[in-house]
Amino acid sequence: MEKTLSLAEERLKELDDRLEVMWSDILERSRFVQAVHGGEFDAKLFAIYMFETYHYTAHNARNQALVGVRALDQAPKYLKFCFHHACEETGHELMALHDVMSLGLREDSFEIPAPLPETEVLIAYLYWISGTGNPLRRLGYSYWAENVYAYVMPAIRKMQEVLGLADNQLTFFISHAEIDKEHALEVRQMLENHCRTREDWDAVRRVMETSLSLTARMIEGAYDAYERLMRGEPSPYAFLNEQLG
Amino acid sequence: MEKTLSLAEERLKELDDRLEVMWSDILERSRFVQAVHGGEFDAKLFAIYMFETYHYTAHNARNQALVGVRALDQAPKYLKFCFHHACEETGHELMALHDVMSLGLREDSFEIPAPLPETEVLIAYLYWISGTGNPLRRLGYSYWAENVYAYVMPAIRKMQEVLGLADNQLTFFISHAEIDKEHALEVRQMLENHCRTREDWDAVRRVMETSLSLTARMIEGAYDAYERLMRGEPSPYAFLNEQLG
Amino acid sequence: MEKTLSLAEERLKELDDRLEVMWSDILERSRFVQAVHGGEFDAKLFAIYMFETYHYTAHNARNQALVGVRALDQAPKYLKFCFHHACEETGHELMALHDVMSLGLREDSFEIPAPLPETEVLIAYLYWISGTGNPLRRLGYSYWAENVYAYVMPAIRKMQEVLGLADNQLTFFISHAEIDKEHALEVRQMLENHCRTREDWDAVRRVMETSLSLTARMIEGAYDAYERLMRGEPSPYAFLNEQLG
Amino acid sequence: MEKTLSLAEERLKELDDRLEVMWSDILERSRFVQAVHGGEFDAKLFAIYMFETYHYTAHNARNQALVGVRALDQAPKYLKFCFHHACEETGHELMALHDVMSLGLREDSFEIPAPLPETEVLIAYLYWISGTGNPLRRLGYSYWAENVYAYVMPAIRKMQEVLGLADNQLTFFISHAEIDKEHALEVRQMLENHCRTREDWDAVRRVMETSLSLTARMIEGAYDAYERLMRGEPSPYAFLNEQLG
Repeated sequence: MEKTLSLAEERLKELDDRLEVMWSDILERSRFVQAVHGGEFDAKLFAIYMFETYHYTAHNARNQALVGVRALDQAPKYLKFCFHHACEETGHELMALHDVMSLGLREDSFEIPAPLPETEVLIAYLYWISGTGNPLRRLGYSYWAENVYAYVMPAIRKMQEVLGLADNQLTFFISHAEIDKEHALEVRQMLENHCRTREDWDAVRRVMETSLSLTARMIEGAYDAYERLMRGEPSPYAFLNEQLG
Repeated sequence: MEKTLSLAEERLKELDDRLEVMWSDILERSRFVQAVHGGEFDAKLFAIYMFETYHYTAHNARNQALVGVRALDQAPKYLKFCFHHACEETGHELMALHDVMSLGLREDSFEIPAPLPETEVLIAYLYWISGTGNPLRRLGYSYWAENVYAYVMPAIRKMQEVLGLADNQLTFFISHAEIDKEHALEVRQMLENHCRTREDWDAVRRVMETSLSLTARMIEGAYDAYERLMRGEPSPYAFLNEQLG
Repeated sequence: MEKTLSLAEERLKELDDRLEVMWSDILERSRFVQAVHGGEFDAKLFAIYMFETYHYTAHNARNQALVGVRALDQAPKYLKFCFHHACEETGHELMALHDVMSLGLREDSFEIPAPLPETEVLIAYLYWISGTGNPLRRLGYSYWAENVYAYVMPAIRKMQEVLGLADNQLTFFISHAEIDKEHALEVRQMLENHCRTREDWDAVRRVMETSLSLTARMIEGAYDAYERLMRGEPSPYAFLNEQLG
Repeated sequence: MEKTLSLAEERLKELDDRLEVMWSDILERSRFVQAVHGGEFDAKLFAIYMFETYHYTAHNARNQALVGVRALDQAPKYLKFCFHHACEETGHELMALHDVMSLGLREDSFEIPAPLPETEVLIAYLYWISGTGNPLRRLGYSYWAENVYAYVMPAIRKMQEVLGLADNQLTFFISHAEIDKEHALEVRQMLENHCRTREDWDAVRRVMETSLSLTARMIEGAYDAYERLMRGEPSPYAFLNEQLG
């Protein structure tokens, strides 16, 4: 028993190490993060980012539950986790929406633009890995997503400072961080208890890496959309120019 | 507000009245129920019935969650209910399996037969109404299923008596009855809070009627399988002859 | 090779024999068929039957294609059959609609009622067996459906005679019968070429039996709806009273 | 009528212009294409590329058919196109497999590696846009995929020359190019006949752009895998070192 646990701990350590490397690379290369730390942005960047966050978050409960719907032969405890986690994720996109609206956007004065292509690709991938393949592999997404705060909070806090946002305008990140502490432990426990084979861990690792890469790309996609908007190019986000100056 | 509630109460009353009529008809016509009350059965009928119950119950959490996976525009509270309820239903088929095995069946000495056609039709229908059409309509299934005990417990108790079963050999019915009391209230609340239109109530009523009819048919299917077994016809349940005499 | 073929032929013969018995039973018991042969019906029965036929037929191309979408490991020839057959089935529901409208119904004066519960159960089952389980098993549905004419044409011709319908008011049955001759041969060939195991044949046989039973039930459901209409009970088909007298 | 046609022609011209720009950018930046034209590659690059091509191609018939399975309200002609096209695409992955095996790989001496992450993202996206959103939008993928040869054949021919491949070792590209000429016309016709609104054309354009970008990324992913292999890093393609030297 001890040996199994320590094998699992070893695998988790490998995941952690890989995340460390990936995040370091992402944060270093990200034009979004550079712009934030350089203070070269305004509320419109935050708005675009939060709308895109709203979009993919709206699917997270659903693709999480999908694992349980199709994973016919999994242990009841894992299935329960899938449904319980889906239940807890439900409606979190409304926090993102609350935060972006708190910038002063007037409801009913615009339609939320369709997700950017990069965001849609992330959404597509999350349904795919939830609906097919190794039923444990979506844990690879949860594994980094529930532990994201250490990596992203510096940039979020910098945005908060520059834009003068109150904590209650960052509910998505701040409340979420609280909720996710417990989730992170549960995800860890699921990995420890249910990953049995090298294939399980490889599938988890692969989804961890790919979903994090696609998320990083989504963030850059938001930055590209911001740049297009600032250059005055046609944009589904043009309404932000009028409402957020 | 009061008026809305009383409209909902009226609709619920209509559902209750309809259930009363349907159950009365089902219990009166059912050859299964007649055989039970006449004492003309043995443990093999209980076994077949519990195996079939095992089959459809194994899908209930999944089709319940499916509603939340696909019901894109529903209120978060209803989505949460779907996932929470799915979580609570997970693994209940194991209670049915426990009960049937407690008759003295030897594990690993047989494979559980595929569901009977009538059971598969019920399963198919529950996925269909969960995955398509009015997203509220699966509540019509829950509405009668969570309130089934008043109607079926007399026959279950009679089976218990005739077969000399202890309460812990009827966990599916006895534990379930406890759990389902709360569920029944939640389902009622969901109907009251989320059914807004005549179409909503009609969709719920229709699923209530159809899923109850298909369940009644499944029970008769189990009885038909029992009769075939007793007549010595080829049967996937032949192993019961050897093990339950 | 010869031996394999003759085994397949034996299995097909078993299916044919079973169909013979089932159809004989269905035609004998059917209140719909009895009413037709007794001449105790009018155009409204034909109309209800054709609307229900319209409903399930609209899904046939889709559930046929679904087999190919999900049957990952099947032979390309079988997959091609699934898609080709889906292509050929597309739009056949419009023949049913054409025929019922030819009775003199005024377009835009009514909405086509939702399928009756019995029809919806059939639709649900066909998606289920197409989307799950043995990928060959939908052939069991095609096997009887493409060979239905010998069994049902006497009743159809009697309806035609009593209602004074021209052949071009029966396009669904008459054109279909032509098209389906070739389909029937293809289905036979698919069964011969792709069913390899006892499990394959059993799965096909089971779907053949169950889908035929559900179709028989759908036909009785149409007759029940006709009787309710004639008794003046509330009915989604009430508009037929006004338009077909 | 003429005006509609010319509007459609205008939109198609916009798609063509956009493709021209995108391809020019892709071919210029692609490290894969640069390596090919520089002659700095060997059979292992071709092999990796063809295995990845095998992977995504195996899903093309399926995601094409999925459009018809779920696009409930589309015109029968478009549905027929979906199923017919799926039928014609079935098994094309076997051409890719034939070509790669013709390099001298020994069957049964290896398992085909799982798709690279970039390939899996492409597959995921194609199912997503086929199964959700505007039912016409998958035509945006077909639009460039059926017209790909003008852009990619120079690199393919260069590979052929450097590796000394016969035409019958390039069946995927050469036979496909023939088949796809007709498909390209059909796709064009579908767009002309079924795109009615600005939203339709936007959805098509967006899928065209995104699926082409993801394909370009897949090709670079194949090149990255080749580089890792050449650097002697751990690789699922390590067997190529042994068999293709």
